[in-house]
Amino acid sequence: MREPRRESPAAKVAPKAVVGRVSLYLRQLEYFQRQGRTTLSSTQLGESLAINNAQVRKDLAFFGQFGYPGIGYRIEELIAALRHILGIDHDWPLAIVGLGNLGRALMKYRGFRSRGFHIVALFDNDPSKIGQTFDGLTVEPVEALRKAVAARTVRLAALSVPADAAQRVADQLVASGIHGILNFAPVTLSVPPSVSVVAVDLSVQLEHLAYKVQNMQGGISYVG
Amino acid sequence: MREPRRESPAAKVAPKAVVGRVSLYLRQLEYFQRQGRTTLSSTQLGESLAINNAQVRKDLAFFGQFGYPGIGYRIEELIAALRHILGIDHDWPLAIVGLGNLGRALMKYRGFRSRGFHIVALFDNDPSKIGQTFDGLTVEPVEALRKAVAARTVRLAALSVPADAAQRVADQLVASGIHGILNFAPVTLSVPPSVSVVAVDLSVQLEHLAYKVQNMQGGISYVG
Repeated sequence: MREPRRESPAAKVAPKAVVGRVSLYLRQLEYFQRQGRTTLSSTQLGESLAINNAQVRKDLAFFGQFGYPGIGYRIEELIAALRHILGIDHDWPLAIVGLGNLGRALMKYRGFRSRGFHIVALFDNDPSKIGQTFDGLTVEPVEALRKAVAARTVRLAALSVPADAAQRVADQLVASGIHGILNFAPVTLSVPPSVSVVAVDLSVQLEHLAYKVQNMQGGISYVG
Repeated sequence: MREPRRESPAAKVAPKAVVGRVSLYLRQLEYFQRQGRTTLSSTQLGESLAINNAQVRKDLAFFGQFGYPGIGYRIEELIAALRHILGIDHDWPLAIVGLGNLGRALMKYRGFRSRGFHIVALFDNDPSKIGQTFDGLTVEPVEALRKAVAARTVRLAALSVPADAAQRVADQLVASGIHGILNFAPVTLSVPPSVSVVAVDLSVQLEHLAYKVQNMQGGISYVG
């Protein structure tokens, strides 16, 4: 997917597909670590994800030289490196905006906290939801975004409001100083170039599945 | 993402990224159609999605020749062609397996039905959920999968069960004759090569957002 890019002072920014696979490598390395392994070859890492070892080596080479001749990867070291690369060697406070079914599902999604994303604020415009408490957090009105984002240094927000409200709430998120939006609403948001958006449209995933089934393309595709 | 492919009797299968963009083109074309437009250039289509026009033309050329010199695309014709390509010119009965927060969110996700995916069966292993009715559908035990899948010609299932149950339930889905699984559990499923899986890991999306924010890479990325 082509997208506008700001010139970054950091090194070259990796393509989306590479970043997605690095997330998967990290999950798999952590799994092997829990099994008591300390080293791993690119072939073993690739086989566990149905990715060939040349692809594994090429993806990791984008970020540096991690393998040791005759040893492979040292799991603990590679985990630390990948967490640093992805920016999850520190915590990211996260706001959930929109507490319908999807927002409540996101709130309880186990995968977020374990990756360093912890939810620190909940917002909704529905008077019947404002003031409700979930897991010790009280739902605040969207108007309180700016103050809450500043006070709790929130940089990322998951946007799970209805499609017709998404752009208006995204404008409020941008005004509040948020840096990144995970957008679940099936609309293309317009944001300033300094704000990052990752758009998740679940029906796109389902269309891709239908396309695979229709074309008898078995196997596993990862989103990322 | 490399993945095993079965030889297909149909034409070449498009890469995942292309299929994802075709879904986005289709959404945008439908939007322009609702605005009363009848034709559109690749530049106009691309601009509305922040994708350049050469990419738009290349993606569509994968499937055929759709543009008319001096006119561009005929919107109605291109919508019909893209729906056929994606396999959503007919309905897909869909089962939801696992009715926790995420499953209930999926059940009410507006984007599914409007794309031709209609939910015809709900399954869960929790005795407190079995027998409950949502939108006229009664939650059935997972053991009833095989019979239900055959009777209602279900080919696709969304799997929204906890991670530690995912492989076991996926095995039951495969045994039931399902053709495609949209997997929300953060585990890599093992399935026979005849079964298609699209894996959605929401924390991968959030990691990608964190990576973009950390590298000051503004703009919009689409998942697909």
